[in-house]
Amino acid sequence: MSSPDAPLDREAFVARLRAEGENRYHDRHPFHVRMHAGKLSRRQIQAWVENRFYYQTRIPIKDAIILSKSEDPAFRRVWMHRISDHDGKEEGLGGIAQWIRLAEGVGLDVDEVKRLTHVLPGVRFACDAYVTLVRERPLVEAVASSLTEFFSPDIMARRIVAWEQHYPWVDGDTLAYFRGRVTRAREDSREAIDYVLAHATTRAEQERCVDALIRKTEILWALLDAVDRAHPDT
Amino acid sequence: MSSPDAPLDREAFVARLRAEGENRYHDRHPFHVRMHAGKLSRRQIQAWVENRFYYQTRIPIKDAIILSKSEDPAFRRVWMHRISDHDGKEEGLGGIAQWIRLAEGVGLDVDEVKRLTHVLPGVRFACDAYVTLVRERPLVEAVASSLTEFFSPDIMARRIVAWEQHYPWVDGDTLAYFRGRVTRAREDSREAIDYVLAHATTRAEQERCVDALIRKTEILWALLDAVDRAHPDT
Repeated sequence: MSSPDAPLDREAFVARLRAEGENRYHDRHPFHVRMHAGKLSRRQIQAWVENRFYYQTRIPIKDAIILSKSEDPAFRRVWMHRISDHDGKEEGLGGIAQWIRLAEGVGLDVDEVKRLTHVLPGVRFACDAYVTLVRERPLVEAVASSLTEFFSPDIMARRIVAWEQHYPWVDGDTLAYFRGRVTRAREDSREAIDYVLAHATTRAEQERCVDALIRKTEILWALLDAVDRAHPDT
Repeated sequence: MSSPDAPLDREAFVARLRAEGENRYHDRHPFHVRMHAGKLSRRQIQAWVENRFYYQTRIPIKDAIILSKSEDPAFRRVWMHRISDHDGKEEGLGGIAQWIRLAEGVGLDVDEVKRLTHVLPGVRFACDAYVTLVRERPLVEAVASSLTEFFSPDIMARRIVAWEQHYPWVDGDTLAYFRGRVTRAREDSREAIDYVLAHATTRAEQERCVDALIRKTEILWALLDAVDRAHPDT
């Protein structure tokens, strides 16, 4: 019989991470449900895009912190592409530039978006909390917090369909960020789960990884809370 | 007449950084002078290689911290190659792998080197202090601390000649790290000085950059102090 402190086996640990993450993933947030159901106004879509941009800008920063916590060139080699995926190999390429084109596609003032003019305090706090989590927790937990990527390929695929159907005023070419993430997030989550399975070897460490993933879902949820509250249905 | 608090002009600031750095650069350390004069024993050379390896392992970590402190994808794009220069594009490539080959070339047990078995406490403290400096100081000062690269192309070029002349028992092919750094350090220091000149715009900030560079020279010096003390001439 296994003791309550025995580590979960590989399958049970993955199942646990998936269940805890999936139950809390931000696609269940009322604002997000309304987004994919075509219920958001142009201004609500814009508000989401300009606020979520702050989250996007935090990604290379938290990934650089993750790099800095590793002692292993092989791990850093694998993880590093995440930074260039967002920053681009050159000006105008990469996820951040794609998000800026999305901002343009929904009719926002790109300079204001870049200057983070309309980022809500609650959005800032949530996204900064992600960077802090990654900075303060051990590497394996920081990596585990990225495992919301388990769920993002599906949400991205559904988002493209939903936006094309419900928000035809958005230039479809500007949805490139979502398209790119379908494949990329799948590969990223595979890399991350391999690392977590190899390095969270005690039950206590496994639980802290689950906790880090839950914190991350709370961050994504709080971002939508803030946008939803500031931009209610009219 | 310029006030004592007026920022130094471009030329004066560069001259100041160069002078303060050059005066304290570790090529003036007695151990280093003896190294290039061919006075070190095989064991002293080995001790330097295995201890300096710890410094090499800190470089991608401090560079990842520098990345994480920048809000600018363009800066991160430029800085990022430093990490892959050390970690390599694949297993066996890059500065850390080249240093391991150097360790082999001087007859060290590579596994012991990788496990940092013989790294002296004083070397650890000095190298860790570099990581801490980069973590705790503002970005521009962290970048300024890298400006010892001003002086490293020359030292590397002289080192290759000196080692080939004085330590013929070292396989010349294993000096690849030094060879690569001649060009690379020149480009790196140009990137870094451009950033420092653009971002240290008050006299106070310029002084803090000079201070960061001085701290860095002290770190390299302390590393040699520790090796010298533990491995005196016999």
